[in-house]
Amino acid sequence: MLKVVIVAILALATTLVSAYDPSPLQDFCVAINNTDSAVFVNGKFCKDPAMVTANDFFFPGLNIPGNTLQVNSDQVKLGSSVNLVNVDNLPGLNTLGISLARLDFAPYGLNPPHIHPRGTELLVVMEGTLLVGFVTSNPNKLFTKVLNKGDVFVFPIGLIHFQFNIGQTNAVAFAGLSSQNPGLITIANAVFGSNPPINPDVLAKAFQLDKNVVDYLQKQF
Amino acid sequence: MLKVVIVAILALATTLVSAYDPSPLQDFCVAINNTDSAVFVNGKFCKDPAMVTANDFFFPGLNIPGNTLQVNSDQVKLGSSVNLVNVDNLPGLNTLGISLARLDFAPYGLNPPHIHPRGTELLVVMEGTLLVGFVTSNPNKLFTKVLNKGDVFVFPIGLIHFQFNIGQTNAVAFAGLSSQNPGLITIANAVFGSNPPINPDVLAKAFQLDKNVVDYLQKQF
Amino acid sequence: MLKVVIVAILALATTLVSAYDPSPLQDFCVAINNTDSAVFVNGKFCKDPAMVTANDFFFPGLNIPGNTLQVNSDQVKLGSSVNLVNVDNLPGLNTLGISLARLDFAPYGLNPPHIHPRGTELLVVMEGTLLVGFVTSNPNKLFTKVLNKGDVFVFPIGLIHFQFNIGQTNAVAFAGLSSQNPGLITIANAVFGSNPPINPDVLAKAFQLDKNVVDYLQKQF
Amino acid sequence: MLKVVIVAILALATTLVSAYDPSPLQDFCVAINNTDSAVFVNGKFCKDPAMVTANDFFFPGLNIPGNTLQVNSDQVKLGSSVNLVNVDNLPGLNTLGISLARLDFAPYGLNPPHIHPRGTELLVVMEGTLLVGFVTSNPNKLFTKVLNKGDVFVFPIGLIHFQFNIGQTNAVAFAGLSSQNPGLITIANAVFGSNPPINPDVLAKAFQLDKNVVDYLQKQF
Amino acid sequence: MLKVVIVAILALATTLVSAYDPSPLQDFCVAINNTDSAVFVNGKFCKDPAMVTANDFFFPGLNIPGNTLQVNSDQVKLGSSVNLVNVDNLPGLNTLGISLARLDFAPYGLNPPHIHPRGTELLVVMEGTLLVGFVTSNPNKLFTKVLNKGDVFVFPIGLIHFQFNIGQTNAVAFAGLSSQNPGLITIANAVFGSNPPINPDVLAKAFQLDKNVVDYLQKQF
Amino acid sequence: MLKVVIVAILALATTLVSAYDPSPLQDFCVAINNTDSAVFVNGKFCKDPAMVTANDFFFPGLNIPGNTLQVNSDQVKLGSSVNLVNVDNLPGLNTLGISLARLDFAPYGLNPPHIHPRGTELLVVMEGTLLVGFVTSNPNKLFTKVLNKGDVFVFPIGLIHFQFNIGQTNAVAFAGLSSQNPGLITIANAVFGSNPPINPDVLAKAFQLDKNVVDYLQKQF
Repeated sequence: MLKVVIVAILALATTLVSAYDPSPLQDFCVAINNTDSAVFVNGKFCKDPAMVTANDFFFPGLNIPGNTLQVNSDQVKLGSSVNLVNVDNLPGLNTLGISLARLDFAPYGLNPPHIHPRGTELLVVMEGTLLVGFVTSNPNKLFTKVLNKGDVFVFPIGLIHFQFNIGQTNAVAFAGLSSQNPGLITIANAVFGSNPPINPDVLAKAFQLDKNVVDYLQKQF
Repeated sequence: MLKVVIVAILALATTLVSAYDPSPLQDFCVAINNTDSAVFVNGKFCKDPAMVTANDFFFPGLNIPGNTLQVNSDQVKLGSSVNLVNVDNLPGLNTLGISLARLDFAPYGLNPPHIHPRGTELLVVMEGTLLVGFVTSNPNKLFTKVLNKGDVFVFPIGLIHFQFNIGQTNAVAFAGLSSQNPGLITIANAVFGSNPPINPDVLAKAFQLDKNVVDYLQKQF
Repeated sequence: MLKVVIVAILALATTLVSAYDPSPLQDFCVAINNTDSAVFVNGKFCKDPAMVTANDFFFPGLNIPGNTLQVNSDQVKLGSSVNLVNVDNLPGLNTLGISLARLDFAPYGLNPPHIHPRGTELLVVMEGTLLVGFVTSNPNKLFTKVLNKGDVFVFPIGLIHFQFNIGQTNAVAFAGLSSQNPGLITIANAVFGSNPPINPDVLAKAFQLDKNVVDYLQKQF
Repeated sequence: MLKVVIVAILALATTLVSAYDPSPLQDFCVAINNTDSAVFVNGKFCKDPAMVTANDFFFPGLNIPGNTLQVNSDQVKLGSSVNLVNVDNLPGLNTLGISLARLDFAPYGLNPPHIHPRGTELLVVMEGTLLVGFVTSNPNKLFTKVLNKGDVFVFPIGLIHFQFNIGQTNAVAFAGLSSQNPGLITIANAVFGSNPPINPDVLAKAFQLDKNVVDYLQKQF
Repeated sequence: MLKVVIVAILALATTLVSAYDPSPLQDFCVAINNTDSAVFVNGKFCKDPAMVTANDFFFPGLNIPGNTLQVNSDQVKLGSSVNLVNVDNLPGLNTLGISLARLDFAPYGLNPPHIHPRGTELLVVMEGTLLVGFVTSNPNKLFTKVLNKGDVFVFPIGLIHFQFNIGQTNAVAFAGLSSQNPGLITIANAVFGSNPPINPDVLAKAFQLDKNVVDYLQKQF
Repeated sequence: MLKVVIVAILALATTLVSAYDPSPLQDFCVAINNTDSAVFVNGKFCKDPAMVTANDFFFPGLNIPGNTLQVNSDQVKLGSSVNLVNVDNLPGLNTLGISLARLDFAPYGLNPPHIHPRGTELLVVMEGTLLVGFVTSNPNKLFTKVLNKGDVFVFPIGLIHFQFNIGQTNAVAFAGLSSQNPGLITIANAVFGSNPPINPDVLAKAFQLDKNVVDYLQKQF
């Protein structure tokens, strides 16, 4: 019985749920990342402020290139890598409404069409040449641009966007995002790779695809 | 010269830009829908409150079934129809954070996978049987349910969702959305039907499709 | 002693306090509805997201007419019934800023003057004929309209409004509200039926009523 | 013709619509109070910041007692006076989310039951003895207290509240409100004194009053 | 072991962290001020609403002059005193976005340059003569004014401001602030008196001061 | 006369006032940067969305090192340079809540103690070694850290912070800020270099400095 009690208490801190937009109500509210969890809040529980140290606001290693040879969980090799510093790995970001990412691209590497449901992305190219774009809500207008070293581009919150290395060399970019937990919806994976899969009739009709193609795609993702 | 001046002034009211989340700062702020426009704000300009009448808060005709035989702008027949009452056609909704839709479905009609970037949808079925679902951000978990008459289901803001009539009769639903301008991104159209089209290399790589298939799809949407 | 501990832990989830406006900080944050409670937050504590199922986003039965013959808690028969689907009975609504209601009216049934302090109401008439209206803040202007089947009307947040069945048949309406917990202040009940009662000198002076009438009214509500 | 143009331009600044909750997007945004107006925004248009002076942030005369002998617009003598400093008379308050009021009470003077739809009120008594209270949303619980010099009490946003001088001397209080335009709904006036009047059948049924009494009250307010 | 459990539970309520801007999600959410704490939220945990009484919204004693002879924690006698009523001593203010302060000044007393990072201040002079001012963000423009009895002045959120008694008598003022926890950064103390001290090379270079002067100042504060 | 009219109209777009926190109410709202201005809003007026192009979301040149030899406007050579990309030079950022900066430091260069009143800063070091820190609101605790290449550190909104190159080589950093117009208050300049100057009695008393030193400092800044 007592064991149950302890588990329930540890549950007050959590890993999976994270925080975003509402204003901070104190100087800071450093997230607690416990792995046992049963009770959550909108955002994250916080650490006792008297226990907070400078390390809670610190994250190292963003100078290290990401592995663009990785095969992602859906067995698709895209030739890109995103290292996101958000409230999950930099707990001091909690309640503060910002995160940061390093993006690496092999030649012809792609960060495929995706949405951040809770954040605008502001990207600066450090090395290489990227074709980038975003599509507005209906009607669907594409805004696209080729970016070189030092170029900055903004992808508005909630819109589908992508970055594609059209150069023959590696490319590197950094991006700020307007949330400590911007979220990520990779369109192809969400549509064809959800768990459980979406009813194939829905996808065949929506994408004007033969059901065999839908079946093939659902196996890929 | 004077003509130019007048046009610029009319431009203060606008049709295309609409309003959503920030709190109202007065009892109401009825949107002005002018078609000449050159200057905009975050949301909409408003009507002189002394000129406002009850009709500014009124919209008729939601008892009329939508045309589910329609062929949408991308020449795709889905067998569904959505009649959305938002700030564009009910100007009194401006600054008030809510809208309403009537959804009609022919047998096997589909409201295809889409996102409302600025609104949660709360749906109630009036007639028929719908298979509905939404997919979370990565990792992509599908939550799905069969709904009958009187059933209510919620689709959280910013997530991909769909409604599919799996019955042999027409289906009707009403939905409230948590914004006066929730926005709509129909996934298939935004990805394969944007104007101009997304670079086909991007889509072929992202969706694991042969470029011929991408080319075919881009012609459909 | 141990018993006390357990009760305190259960208190983390609660029934009475509910959530509304601040943005969601994750895809969803399904409310936990525990009845034992001692610790609360602004809004509601949430369920472990790994335990969430489609049923957490589901509520059945809104096809069933409300009982318009009911006598409310203040022994007043108004001939109306409101069935509200909010975060208290549809926990998936937590943090998502919307709720839904079914309103039934007997002939001459009244939903009396009331305020939703945290929500705008957007109503559509399904059957019957309603006289509706809202009153602005000082100076008090009435906006009023007769609504028939398919008509939509918006009642701005925080303003006094009412719906009155002026037809000889039953009337039915559905309404979206811009909060998962819009709140409800029925004016007559709040003023004349509070517990404990408001000092009758205050009410007699405010409403220009004889103290005997105030006394009578305080007994009614 | 030119005259029309000029009027339209002046219309960009307005008196009647005011601003409240959304965060300021610059150090300040001093409201412009023009009397000609045809175009409005959520909140107020602002003055050129280069033209702003210290006087835009200044308002004199809150040391002067209000006239508690006044007969208000509804011909009701309540023995109280409220002098509100909000964005309408202190334009520097625009976008800053706060206002201030001086309240004067003759012996037995009453600030009758009312609601601020957009603001919490925090009151401090300077002189005299006040009976104060507020009523929660349904179910309607009254929280009440007798306040003396130096006592502070908070009335939460959107709830019905009142202040009543139960002493035999004048009373004075100051109050901060959490909006530059908190709004004011005096319950009795809004219900019985709206323009045009609410259908008397609605009021008779809602307040359990004889229609003759409703008729009498509608003439009073 | 059981003891550990109990401490962890008490930790759910806390003294040090407080709440501000996001909208209230219920009528009220009275803060709990426990001194044992290990788990926090953005803002404060709340009391069971069924246990709330009128005293939770009440704070006495603001008629008592502050001690302007006090020597503050940095051993500096400034001749002023601020008595702030915020969510820490008036728990009913939690989630409601407002606080109140009484300011007392001895002749030539100073409330030194400071910032409220989470609140605008709206001040009214009750007695005496104050020189007040605030400085905008870069470029740094000073807005300044001499205030007498009954004068009101607003200091926008996040800007450096001060109040200085330039009269030969005591001065008294009241101020509303647009947050239940506006925060306070006294510039001189934060810069020269932080714990641990800021690197003196930083301060010498930033303030164009000799390192001996910086060393002297860091000993003062 | 006509000329006056035209100027007033152009005034609808503005350079000096910028936008930040409230949510976007449409996909984007690209700021208009006109230099003539007489009417403003909270934030910025926007461009006709039909006229928007990809270049509105684009800013080049952040690969170019800033000039760390510059003498700033107060004739102080600090050995640092900040190139901020915000809504003033990247109009597509309007309403989107994020900005980006490149920071260059000569050896021993200093970005002196300052505050962003409307934004948290998230910094990543690209080259060199920086001593960084921030000070909490009262009581004033310093959080400090030495950062090397690839290290990330967060400076919470509204708190005093600094970055100091303690290496013998140049240093470069990039920073995201959680507002399209975060604002900047350089403490030493705002206190000692405002225009007009703050009353020297105030500064002498606040900083415990001899009036001659205050006089000297006010001439420096």
